[in-house]
Amino acid sequence: MTERREFKNLISPERAHETIASLDIDPGTETVPLRAARGRVLAERIDATLDVPGFDRASMDGYAVRARDTFGADEADPVTLSLAGAVHAGESPSVTVESGTCAEISTGAVMPPGADAVVIVERTEMTDDEDIEVGTSVAPGDSVMAAGADIAAGARAIGPGTTITPREIGLLAAVGCESIPVQERPHVGIVSTGDELVRPGEELDSGRGQIYDVNSDTIAAGVEEAGGKPVLYPHAGDDYAEMERLLRQAADECDLVLSSGSTSASAVDVIYQVIEDRGELLVHGVSVKPGKPMLIGRMDRSDGGTAAYIGLPGYPVSALSIFRTFVAPAIREAAGLAAAAAPTTTATMATVERYTEGRTRLLPVGLVEDATGALLAYPVDKGSGATTSLVEADGIVTVDASTSYLDSGERVTVELFSAAVRPPSLFGVGEDDPALNRLLDRLDHPRYLPVGSREGSRRLRNGVPDVAVVAGPTQHDLAAEPIGEWSREWGLLVPEGNPDDVTGIDSLVKNELRFVNREQNSGLRTSLANAIAEYADENETERHTVVESIDGFDFGVKAFESPARRVLAGTADVGVGLRETAERLGLGFVSLGTQPVVVLANPDRLSKPGVESFETAIANAGELFDSLAGYEK
Amino acid sequence: MTERREFKNLISPERAHETIASLDIDPGTETVPLRAARGRVLAERIDATLDVPGFDRASMDGYAVRARDTFGADEADPVTLSLAGAVHAGESPSVTVESGTCAEISTGAVMPPGADAVVIVERTEMTDDEDIEVGTSVAPGDSVMAAGADIAAGARAIGPGTTITPREIGLLAAVGCESIPVQERPHVGIVSTGDELVRPGEELDSGRGQIYDVNSDTIAAGVEEAGGKPVLYPHAGDDYAEMERLLRQAADECDLVLSSGSTSASAVDVIYQVIEDRGELLVHGVSVKPGKPMLIGRMDRSDGGTAAYIGLPGYPVSALSIFRTFVAPAIREAAGLAAAAAPTTTATMATVERYTEGRTRLLPVGLVEDATGALLAYPVDKGSGATTSLVEADGIVTVDASTSYLDSGERVTVELFSAAVRPPSLFGVGEDDPALNRLLDRLDHPRYLPVGSREGSRRLRNGVPDVAVVAGPTQHDLAAEPIGEWSREWGLLVPEGNPDDVTGIDSLVKNELRFVNREQNSGLRTSLANAIAEYADENETERHTVVESIDGFDFGVKAFESPARRVLAGTADVGVGLRETAERLGLGFVSLGTQPVVVLANPDRLSKPGVESFETAIANAGELFDSLAGYEK
Repeated sequence: MTERREFKNLISPERAHETIASLDIDPGTETVPLRAARGRVLAERIDATLDVPGFDRASMDGYAVRARDTFGADEADPVTLSLAGAVHAGESPSVTVESGTCAEISTGAVMPPGADAVVIVERTEMTDDEDIEVGTSVAPGDSVMAAGADIAAGARAIGPGTTITPREIGLLAAVGCESIPVQERPHVGIVSTGDELVRPGEELDSGRGQIYDVNSDTIAAGVEEAGGKPVLYPHAGDDYAEMERLLRQAADECDLVLSSGSTSASAVDVIYQVIEDRGELLVHGVSVKPGKPMLIGRMDRSDGGTAAYIGLPGYPVSALSIFRTFVAPAIREAAGLAAAAAPTTTATMATVERYTEGRTRLLPVGLVEDATGALLAYPVDKGSGATTSLVEADGIVTVDASTSYLDSGERVTVELFSAAVRPPSLFGVGEDDPALNRLLDRLDHPRYLPVGSREGSRRLRNGVPDVAVVAGPTQHDLAAEPIGEWSREWGLLVPEGNPDDVTGIDSLVKNELRFVNREQNSGLRTSLANAIAEYADENETERHTVVESIDGFDFGVKAFESPARRVLAGTADVGVGLRETAERLGLGFVSLGTQPVVVLANPDRLSKPGVESFETAIANAGELFDSLAGYEK
Repeated sequence: MTERREFKNLISPERAHETIASLDIDPGTETVPLRAARGRVLAERIDATLDVPGFDRASMDGYAVRARDTFGADEADPVTLSLAGAVHAGESPSVTVESGTCAEISTGAVMPPGADAVVIVERTEMTDDEDIEVGTSVAPGDSVMAAGADIAAGARAIGPGTTITPREIGLLAAVGCESIPVQERPHVGIVSTGDELVRPGEELDSGRGQIYDVNSDTIAAGVEEAGGKPVLYPHAGDDYAEMERLLRQAADECDLVLSSGSTSASAVDVIYQVIEDRGELLVHGVSVKPGKPMLIGRMDRSDGGTAAYIGLPGYPVSALSIFRTFVAPAIREAAGLAAAAAPTTTATMATVERYTEGRTRLLPVGLVEDATGALLAYPVDKGSGATTSLVEADGIVTVDASTSYLDSGERVTVELFSAAVRPPSLFGVGEDDPALNRLLDRLDHPRYLPVGSREGSRRLRNGVPDVAVVAGPTQHDLAAEPIGEWSREWGLLVPEGNPDDVTGIDSLVKNELRFVNREQNSGLRTSLANAIAEYADENETERHTVVESIDGFDFGVKAFESPARRVLAGTADVGVGLRETAERLGLGFVSLGTQPVVVLANPDRLSKPGVESFETAIANAGELFDSLAGYEK
C-alpha cells in the first residue's frame, strides 16, 4: 500500500510558536497614499515639515484688537474702537490694526498686523456709527492660536509602529503628507493541494469524490484579516510536477507559503519532497488536536533568500483553528500590527467536556446568551470534516494537555474566530422547515441547527439552545414552553403527472418503486412510520414486513428538500416531503395528512429578547403561512 | 458686517439621532465575488443548492468494509479480509466491496459500492499475504460522512444580515458560491468647503491663512471604517457657484452628503441656500459641545429621489466627534452592520472635570494605564482647533447636560475613536528634544506631548503622565524618580558662515539682529534667561533692559527646530537652539553652554512595563548619544 506518513516526533504547541517566530516573514516597507493608509502601520517616524497653523490665527469669530486697548473695559464701561476693516478665512489681511482700532475677523483667519488678541463677537456691540463697543478686557494671545502652536515644524508628529486610524490620517493631512511609508503587508501564498478539490464556480464531479476547495478562500480571508496579502495559486489537481512548480513559484513570490486542503498522502509527499529538496522541514507534527499533521519549514528562493512554509491540516475547521492559533499571530507581527489584536471573550461552559488524549486541544465552541445576557460556551462537535461547523462555532477554547475535563459552569476564555463575531440573538435546533427558514430571515442574526425533531428535543432538555422546533407526533418535553405552532401537509412526492400512479403507502409496498426517506431525527419520518404502522394494522401484517417491502425506506437524507431533489433528478421514484415543496419544485403530491410543528422554548430563556422577538415574529406571520401551500396557523 | 448665522433653536442630541434615523440612506444591494466579500453583509438568505459532501465519504484513512463482516472482531480475535483494491480522494471507486473483502481508502475518498463503514488504519494489520486483519468491530456508518450530512441541498446555509467573516466564506465556498448578494455600502459624499482649505500635497499660502484640509481625509477614513464608501469631491475654494454645483452633484451621486471644513460664514450661506432651495433643512444646531453648528437635512436629486445631508463642524476634533457620535451609527445601520460595533471601554477619570454649560458634552479623553494596567482617562484640552488633539485623544466621554462635573476616580465609558485604539505603552510630557524623539522610536507606541519642561513638571505633579522630560536648570519635583539623564550643548544659531559675526548675547544686545526664541515652557528659554541674567550682572545693568534690547526675545516658537527654520528661511538672523540642530541643518552655531536633560518618572508607575522599557532604552542608547553633535551621556 501507499506509504502513510506517521507523525511520530510531535512537538509541543509552545515549541511550534517559537519555531514560527524564528522564521523571517518580515516583508519590508512601502509607500502608500495617505488616503489608502487606514489600517496600515507606519514604518518610520514622521516629523512635521511645517508649522500648523502656519500663521497666527483667530480661533473665534470677533474683532482683532491690540489687547492693551481693552485693559479696564467691562460691560458697564465698554471701550469704543473704530472699525478699520475685516479679515476673512483664506484672505491675506489688507488692514493693519493701529491703537484705537479693530478689525472684524472670522475664525481661522490670519491675524492682521498690529493685533495681538481677538474679542469674541458676543462681547461686542456695533454702535449706530458702526464703531465697535468692547465690553471686556482681553490679554495678548486671547482667542488667537499662534503659528506652530498646534504642531511645529521639526516636531515629532507620529512614531513608527503606529496603526493608522482616521485620527492619524487627520494629523498627517494637517502637516500636508500625501503619502507615507508603511510596513508592507506580508505576502502569503496559498497553495491548494489535494486531487479532490475544485475551486468554487467550477463544475463538481461528486462521483469522483470531488468537493469544493473551502480552505483557500477561508484562509485567504483570514490572512487579510490578520493584515497580510493573500496570493492564491491555481489549483494543480493531481499534476504533481505542476504542484511542485507552484510551490517553488510561491516561495519566490511570497514571504510565507501556506499549503492547505490536502488529505491525500501523495500530495503530502510532493510537499515533503519540495521542502526537503529545496529548504528545510523544521517541524512535522504538533501535539495539538486538531492539527497534529502541521508542518513548519523554510523554502529556498531562486534569489538566494528564503520563504517560510507552514502546512495546514485539510479539514476546514482544523485548518482555520490552526491558522488562527499559530499563523495569524505571526502574520500580524510581520505586518507590524499589535500582538494584542486577537479578539477574545470569556464565557461559562454550558456542558461538561471530557478529554483524555494528552494533547493540547483547540476546542471549537459556539456561544449563546442566557436571559441575563451572560455568555455560555458549548462544544461544537460535528467532526472537523464538516464545513457547517465553521459557522456553528464562534471561537476556540484552548484546553491544556493536562486538563482531562472542563466542568459545566467553568469559566473559559474563548478566542473568537474574528473581531466581527457576536453571539446569535436566538439559538434554535430541531426540524428543518421552509416556513421556519423564512421566519428566521426576519430575526437579527439567529443561529439554527436543523438536527431534526428528536435530536432537537434532546438538546433542549440539556439546556443549551433557546428553542427547539419539533414536528410530527413527537412526545413534547413537559418542561418546555410552546411559543408558537403551525401545521404542514405532508405526503409522497412523485414526478409531475404521477407516472407510476402512486396513491399512498400501498403503492410503495406493492410496486417496484425506488423510495427516498428523511433521516431518523426528522419529524416527517416519524409521521411516515406512524402511517406505516396504521397501514400494517389495517392489512393485518407486521410493521417490519411493510418496511422491508419498501425499497429505500432505511435510506434517509438530511434536508426537507432532499427527497424531492432526488425525485426531480430521477434517482428516486417517490420521496417523503411537503406539499409546499412539491408545488414549488413542480412535482406531483399524494397527501398523507398534516402534522403540527411546535416551537418549544427553554423555560429559563423566555425573557431573552431574541426568544421574545421570535414569538412575536411567529404571531405576526399570518401572511407567510397563507402564502405557503399546505400550511396553516 | 456679514450676516452671522445664529443657532438659536438647538435640538437635543436624542432628537438629532432620531432625525438622522428618519433619513433614508439605505443603498440597496449588489453582488460581489465571494473572495471580496469579507466584512460585507449578506442581503438575502442563501440556501445550499447541493449536498455537501456530494457523496458518502470516508472520514478517516483506513479500509472500507461491510460492517457486518467485522461483527465480533477484536484485537485478540481479528477478522481477516482480502484486499480488493484502493480508493483515493478525487478518484471514482473502481472496486466493489463484496462480503469478506475490503478496500484501502483515504480520508475524503468516495465510499466504494458495497461498503458501509471504514475501519481506521490503526486497528488493522497487513498480513504477509497482503490480507488485512481487522482488530475491531464497526457499525454501519462508522468513519463515514453520508452525502449531505454536512449540509443538504435546499437547507438554509446563511441568513440575511450576516456579516461575512472567514467562516462564512468557508461555508459558502463549500456549497460552491462564487458570488453573493450583499448590502451595498452607502455612498457618502464629502464636500469640503471653506476658502482657506488646501488639499494635502498642494502648495500652501500661509500668508493668506491657508491650511491643509484635514477633515476630508479624516472623515473619509471614518466613513470606510463604518462600512460606507467615501466619495471625495474636489475642493471648490471660494467659487460659490462651483460649490453649489458640487453639492448638487454629490446629492445625485450619493446616499448621504457630508459637508465639512467650513469655518467661513459665506460658505455656510451657500450650503443653506442650496439645501433650502433644493431640499429641506430639518435641524440647524444641536445642543452638544462641540458640535453646536451641526446641520441635518435632505437634498432633492435630479432623478426625483432624495439624499440625506449632514453638515459637520469645521474643527477636526469636533468634526470627528460629531461624525463618530451621530453619523457613523447611521452609516453602519445603512451598511447592515451591527449597531453594537462601536468599540467602547471603561476607565477611571484621572482628574476632576468641571462643566456648567447645560449642553451635552462630548469630552475628548486620552487613556493611560497605571502600573496595574487599569485604565485612566484624562481630558484632552487644547481647544478643538488643534489637529494634534486628534492623536492625543483616544475617544469620547459623553457627559449629560445635567452633569456639572466628573470627579477624579469616577468610572466613565469611553467610546473609542476606532477599534484599533489601544492605550500607549508610555505616556510622557515635557521638553522637545531630538535625542528623545529617536529614543521614543525604539518603544512600542509611546505617546509624548512636547509641552515644554515647565508644563511637563506641572503635569507630572498632577499624576497623569508616566514620565516628564525636563531640560535646563529647572527645579525638579522631589517626589519624582530620575530614570535617565543626558546633556546637550545649546547656544545661538546663525546663518552658515555667521555673516553678522555673532559671538554671544552681547551681539544680540548691541546689533540690530532679528532674534527668535523658544516658548516660555521650554528649558532652552530658561537657560537663555539665566545666561542673560548673568550677562546683566557682568555688565551691571538690569535684566529687563537687556531683554528689551533684544528684538524678538518675547516671540517664542514651539519646537526645538523652529528657531533654526526661521533663520534658514531668512525671517530671523539669530535663534536659540542646539548644536545638533545647527550641524544637521547646516547653520552656524555659537555655543552658550550645556544643559542637563532629565527623565523623571511618576513614582507610582516605576513598575509599569513601558516605563521600565524606556529606562532600559535610555541606558542602552550610548551609540545614539554619541551620534548626535553636542550630546553626552
